[in-house]
Amino acid sequence: MSRSRFRFDLLRAENSEALGHRARLGRLTTPHGVVQTPAFMPVGTQATVKGLTIDQVHSTGAEILLGNTYHLALRPGSELIAALGGLHQFMGWTGPILTDSGGFQLFSLAQNSKVTDEGAVFRSHIDGSLMQLTPEDAVRIQEELGSDIAMVLDHVIGLPSPPEKIRDAVARTIRWADRCRAAARRPEQTLFAITQGGLDCDLRLACTEKLVALDFAGYAIGGLSVGEPPEEMYRVLDATVPALPAERPRYLMGVGRPQDLVEGIARGIDMFDCVMPTRNARNALAFTRQGPVRLRNLKHARDPRPLEEDCPCPACRHSRAYLRHLFLAREMLGPTLLTLHNLTYYQRLMAAARAAIAAGEFETWRQAQHRDWAGSARDPTDSTADDTASGPESSDS
Amino acid sequence: MSRSRFRFDLLRAENSEALGHRARLGRLTTPHGVVQTPAFMPVGTQATVKGLTIDQVHSTGAEILLGNTYHLALRPGSELIAALGGLHQFMGWTGPILTDSGGFQLFSLAQNSKVTDEGAVFRSHIDGSLMQLTPEDAVRIQEELGSDIAMVLDHVIGLPSPPEKIRDAVARTIRWADRCRAAARRPEQTLFAITQGGLDCDLRLACTEKLVALDFAGYAIGGLSVGEPPEEMYRVLDATVPALPAERPRYLMGVGRPQDLVEGIARGIDMFDCVMPTRNARNALAFTRQGPVRLRNLKHARDPRPLEEDCPCPACRHSRAYLRHLFLAREMLGPTLLTLHNLTYYQRLMAAARAAIAAGEFETWRQAQHRDWAGSARDPTDSTADDTASGPESSDS
Repeated sequence: MSRSRFRFDLLRAENSEALGHRARLGRLTTPHGVVQTPAFMPVGTQATVKGLTIDQVHSTGAEILLGNTYHLALRPGSELIAALGGLHQFMGWTGPILTDSGGFQLFSLAQNSKVTDEGAVFRSHIDGSLMQLTPEDAVRIQEELGSDIAMVLDHVIGLPSPPEKIRDAVARTIRWADRCRAAARRPEQTLFAITQGGLDCDLRLACTEKLVALDFAGYAIGGLSVGEPPEEMYRVLDATVPALPAERPRYLMGVGRPQDLVEGIARGIDMFDCVMPTRNARNALAFTRQGPVRLRNLKHARDPRPLEEDCPCPACRHSRAYLRHLFLAREMLGPTLLTLHNLTYYQRLMAAARAAIAAGEFETWRQAQHRDWAGSARDPTDSTADDTASGPESSDS
Repeated sequence: MSRSRFRFDLLRAENSEALGHRARLGRLTTPHGVVQTPAFMPVGTQATVKGLTIDQVHSTGAEILLGNTYHLALRPGSELIAALGGLHQFMGWTGPILTDSGGFQLFSLAQNSKVTDEGAVFRSHIDGSLMQLTPEDAVRIQEELGSDIAMVLDHVIGLPSPPEKIRDAVARTIRWADRCRAAARRPEQTLFAITQGGLDCDLRLACTEKLVALDFAGYAIGGLSVGEPPEEMYRVLDATVPALPAERPRYLMGVGRPQDLVEGIARGIDMFDCVMPTRNARNALAFTRQGPVRLRNLKHARDPRPLEEDCPCPACRHSRAYLRHLFLAREMLGPTLLTLHNLTYYQRLMAAARAAIAAGEFETWRQAQHRDWAGSARDPTDSTADDTASGPESSDS
């Protein structure tokens, strides 16, 4: 597989332990354009970022989108998308696209999923029909979709799980990664591996080393943010990331809260995706520098202020009172405006992180962010305590 | 009431019967800007054109919006909207706004509506609470909303109705119009009267003459497009419009299909509103020059063509196959894109009508439009026969 049209340039990386972080600034070059890292990828599960036109997605500052192989294979089918010119043409997004492999949805969404060494057999969550997904299928479907970055099929399991089950899933994930690499045919597409291993740092490290030996263009850390405390996730990152080659991009899958992005960046992660900004938007929860704002709350009924004074998004041209009215009246524009705001917030957070890294001031910036969020947590009516209610996931349904 | 900031200029009007039409070109000047007529007003029932941001509404070519007094009075309340700076500020639309009076919703939406000479008493369709709406209330609410054009409260009844009932409603509509005029206080707001009279041309004429004698800034024709055949509506227009003063704008309420707009323009109507383009969009029906397209139809599954080759709207950057996928996958973007397309179609139709009138070629243009629509009606899978299934109405709920 040629990687001539794919390149990752590390522009700045802090390796000194004294700094207390490993944040890095990079640039990912793909056949459909350049992505500045650290980057957040909005989730476009069914060939659309829910509720937004392509122009609106662009307006949030997003440079790369995530598409879901499992969903698109089921409906409308990768063959149809290929016949219509591929996923970029189909959804009208001219920038880079990363597709996941369906591994997470086999775990979270498919019915009666049975995993063997050959692959997974499951029933569609749409119509109950019997489907199969092998590593070779996952590669073929992603090649039909024509994404810039494809992911290997991994075996995702719930946490906590017995050690034997985790070891088994890790071994299978490594064998499947090798099969995916062997199956890949498209020179315009790059394949990333996915490390697994639950919260067992030794197992994570062993999995990572085996995948690194197979030499992938990028590495993802999967199977996290599935219910464990954030500190457990950070511990796994601390153990895993240093084993990844510095010159390859690192992607933390399905994460997460703004705090998790900042802590992921601090641990050397370059790429993120999560449904939190989009799914929470549809549930009337807005992310702001001062923490989450629940717009259904009565206290916003007459509030003339925007969500954020300096935010350039279309939602912030309106009052909180208007946004609240839209949700109480069940108007589509409520979810649309809040999706625009939340994605803009996430992209502004990433841009601020990149600027801080570039200026050598990441640690100061990181602490300031946490101070702002901690301040907001003291307001009992807009507590951050349950802002993960809808949970980080890898597809937005 | 001062009308200094409201003006209607008739730029061209064909009065010759030999031409076979009475189409006219005009310019409506309001405190919030100018509207070229004939004009179509998208319906923004709950302080939002369903699914569209204000920028998107602008992009369709709309110059004036309609807001619904009944809905806004119930939720969030006109007092709250006034406290937040009025409807323009609340929803972020800086152009002209016309508000209806609630008369149509008392007939179509309110529960247990009882009409007396004093006004209407009804139960809210939202929470069943007991409400009252008098002509004075309708004026006060619209003044709190701060629309550029307010409508008098009229007594709308179903068709067919006994002659005595129609006569009674007409007499009440005239008395209420006079009371609305007497109650109006805001110099920045103009009040239009509404003629009623069902399909009885003599009664329509008598009602029109009495309202004209009261000297309103504009006149609406109400109570039509409530189930009667289009030809009946055209007959009523033929009898009513000539009795209206040429120098005042004429507004046909709640109409209608593209054909009805063209026929209304031909009969001398200047302004229209209808939920058809927006409501049908949410039901996957697109309006095109070749007639309606039902996007759920299997025949569009692999169709790479846009809805209209020369349409500048965001939906027409996509294939019919993609739009169909969005509806089958129940994605919000489907209704949003089709709303953008349908409103753009309606605005392009009005712009074409204005250009044809300006060029003195309205009759030729009118016949060409009908030829295109008639051609499409021969396709049994996309028939125009039931494109009024969701019916013209004056609020989009």
